[in-house]
Amino acid sequence: MNHVTREEALEYHHLNGHPGKLSVIPTKPLETQRDLSLAYTPGVAAPVLEIEKDPELAYEYTNKGNLVAVISNGTAILGLGNRGALASKPVMEGKGVLFKKFADIDVFDIEVATEDPERLISVVSAIAPSFGGINLEDIRSPECFAVETRLQEMLDIPVFHDDQHGTAIILGAALINALEVTQRRIHEIKVVFSGAGAAAIACANQLVKLGVPLANIWMCDIAGLVYEGRQKEMFPQKEIYAKGQQPGTLAEVMEGADVFIGLSAANIVKPEMLSRMRKDPVIFAMANPDPEIAYDLAVATRPDAIVATGRSDYPNQINNVLGFPFIFRGALDVRARKINDAMKVAASQALAQLAHEPVPADVLKAYDIDHLEYGRDYLVPKPLDKRVCPWEAGAVARAAMESGVARRPVDLDQYCRQLADRACSH
Amino acid sequence: MNHVTREEALEYHHLNGHPGKLSVIPTKPLETQRDLSLAYTPGVAAPVLEIEKDPELAYEYTNKGNLVAVISNGTAILGLGNRGALASKPVMEGKGVLFKKFADIDVFDIEVATEDPERLISVVSAIAPSFGGINLEDIRSPECFAVETRLQEMLDIPVFHDDQHGTAIILGAALINALEVTQRRIHEIKVVFSGAGAAAIACANQLVKLGVPLANIWMCDIAGLVYEGRQKEMFPQKEIYAKGQQPGTLAEVMEGADVFIGLSAANIVKPEMLSRMRKDPVIFAMANPDPEIAYDLAVATRPDAIVATGRSDYPNQINNVLGFPFIFRGALDVRARKINDAMKVAASQALAQLAHEPVPADVLKAYDIDHLEYGRDYLVPKPLDKRVCPWEAGAVARAAMESGVARRPVDLDQYCRQLADRACSH
Repeated sequence: MNHVTREEALEYHHLNGHPGKLSVIPTKPLETQRDLSLAYTPGVAAPVLEIEKDPELAYEYTNKGNLVAVISNGTAILGLGNRGALASKPVMEGKGVLFKKFADIDVFDIEVATEDPERLISVVSAIAPSFGGINLEDIRSPECFAVETRLQEMLDIPVFHDDQHGTAIILGAALINALEVTQRRIHEIKVVFSGAGAAAIACANQLVKLGVPLANIWMCDIAGLVYEGRQKEMFPQKEIYAKGQQPGTLAEVMEGADVFIGLSAANIVKPEMLSRMRKDPVIFAMANPDPEIAYDLAVATRPDAIVATGRSDYPNQINNVLGFPFIFRGALDVRARKINDAMKVAASQALAQLAHEPVPADVLKAYDIDHLEYGRDYLVPKPLDKRVCPWEAGAVARAAMESGVARRPVDLDQYCRQLADRACSH
Repeated sequence: MNHVTREEALEYHHLNGHPGKLSVIPTKPLETQRDLSLAYTPGVAAPVLEIEKDPELAYEYTNKGNLVAVISNGTAILGLGNRGALASKPVMEGKGVLFKKFADIDVFDIEVATEDPERLISVVSAIAPSFGGINLEDIRSPECFAVETRLQEMLDIPVFHDDQHGTAIILGAALINALEVTQRRIHEIKVVFSGAGAAAIACANQLVKLGVPLANIWMCDIAGLVYEGRQKEMFPQKEIYAKGQQPGTLAEVMEGADVFIGLSAANIVKPEMLSRMRKDPVIFAMANPDPEIAYDLAVATRPDAIVATGRSDYPNQINNVLGFPFIFRGALDVRARKINDAMKVAASQALAQLAHEPVPADVLKAYDIDHLEYGRDYLVPKPLDKRVCPWEAGAVARAAMESGVARRPVDLDQYCRQLADRACSH
């Protein structure tokens, strides 16, 4: 673990004898008998009847519009695999408090005790009225694809599997800037993936949306190259990326690659494999907690490389927390019916653009850094940068409105000013 | 509505442009990169692995042990009937903040979009790992009986349908004291119910547990007396209370009754019906917002009566809020596997006993009352009385331990002192 021990983590989760990481508080006065009559019987009958007449009024009289469910069945927890619904609860609570910290969104974490995708869909669709959005989390591949797609079809609120799209959006931002820094054109690059799970497929899909030709994306997993007609460990979403008719190794495929994207396992990339890549290689080694090749080894092997990892203790951390809070913030605030491709692309572009801006002093201070400037070692903004919220949520809200999925459009200038004020008050 | 208008209630639910009544906040620091590494990846892996090894550790490293789900499908909202899951959300949020206000319990309100009891059971059992207890709410009769019973059998955490047991527990407390004040013996009284829904059945069951002979409880509903062999609107839980083989009217049955318990509809009891009751009649007219007979009319008709209602603007309010927060507080704190009969009886008895104690000045002040003393007009404590928490939760915890359903016994003296300190700090 980067800089934190098991004991420290356990102690943190139980600080002051208060187990867990969240609490639910009233936002309205409850001091007098009259307050109680307004909050509960008999007063509460009034909003009930209003909402029955017009369901949209749930956004006016309840917390629905600021409430996201973070839902997991625990079948693919972090890099730990299937550990069951209950064991996923610390992760989901953690996700919940990050939503709050970064974007002032309230989260109920819901752990669902089933490995059956049909039952999971049934459960989530049944509880959906409670929420303004659904963040699916740590559900194993390939079931996760159908669970997300089916729920998106059934529900009129955003349904977003963060393990897929969260990583994809931040990676997309980092790649846009890495290509600019190394003066490449996006439709000319060869990209090689190590890993072909949910996150890798979603990242590849996002790269295609950003302009990488499908034909230029090569994918390898534990069984080697994903090729046409391969029988082992295949599913339709992976099939799309099949290349050639023959087996191949990761080392072979990396010959002449511009970009390596690792979403697989620790230390499976060797220095000689990096040597096969083109000049100024882009190496995004995102396995957690230990990347596909150690940061220092990658840089020593290829001093001309741009390297990113999932770790906070090296430059260019590709971290989902730069995405999900702000994507949902923008989607909720315009009451988007879904989080569509246009919104995901807008999120990547907004993050990429923000990295070009001078970094404020408070951000440098938060990370104890003297200097940070757009370039090889600073491709994406830092999570504790308060400008991320107005930039990214604003871009997502705009894309939702322009693509016709916003049920309540907003004045964008005013909205972004409000977001900036709100973020600064945290 | 007692003292609050529709407009005031709608305004309250949207105060300061912040819709709804609750918010979720972090309880641990999230200020630095290190905090983020402890709360989420990579630190969070440590509690995940601990909980997988020992599920009981979810109570140490997550909020599960202080978290109750308030769950409804909206099929019987307050006195408003079936208005759908979404429309029930203001009620469930209200319940949630009362849990917090009165007993410092965190609540997620979950509205479930199904009228099918089987699907409701499937949904609730699937999401149960997230919670330390389940409070079912506003689910219509007779489905509510099976939903509760089946979930109790499936789950090892408390499942409590408050519309049944909440009312029953407070009513039980009021009846214990009403009988003492009027010098009656509980096994000699004749009790007549108007209403035979979930709350009425549960109240009758609670009275039987407290000592009223089943043979002395008469029940009437919209079809008149519940008698043996009646075909209309019958179900097994109601069948138990059937009396005689002939139809009868409420007026007929009230002849010679000691106690009237109304859980039905406004103004269906006429003065001449009260005249048929015995000396010092006990009249608990709890239909909301308007009782079976107006308080003033009941007292004018029978100056010798003890009258209670569900309203806060008359003496002796029978209000669930005196029950659910403290029953769950006690149950959660000893990790009770269920809320059993012993715990429900203990809750009634504790409330009845507390009413004998002198009322503190701060309680009088909160209700703007000069004087309050045990007797006809003060049968149960006031909800804003901070002594209720240690008295009732302590009694419930004790009963759980003595009846063998507590998974983590506590030192009762110490526990009640802690509760008292905690309640005072609110």
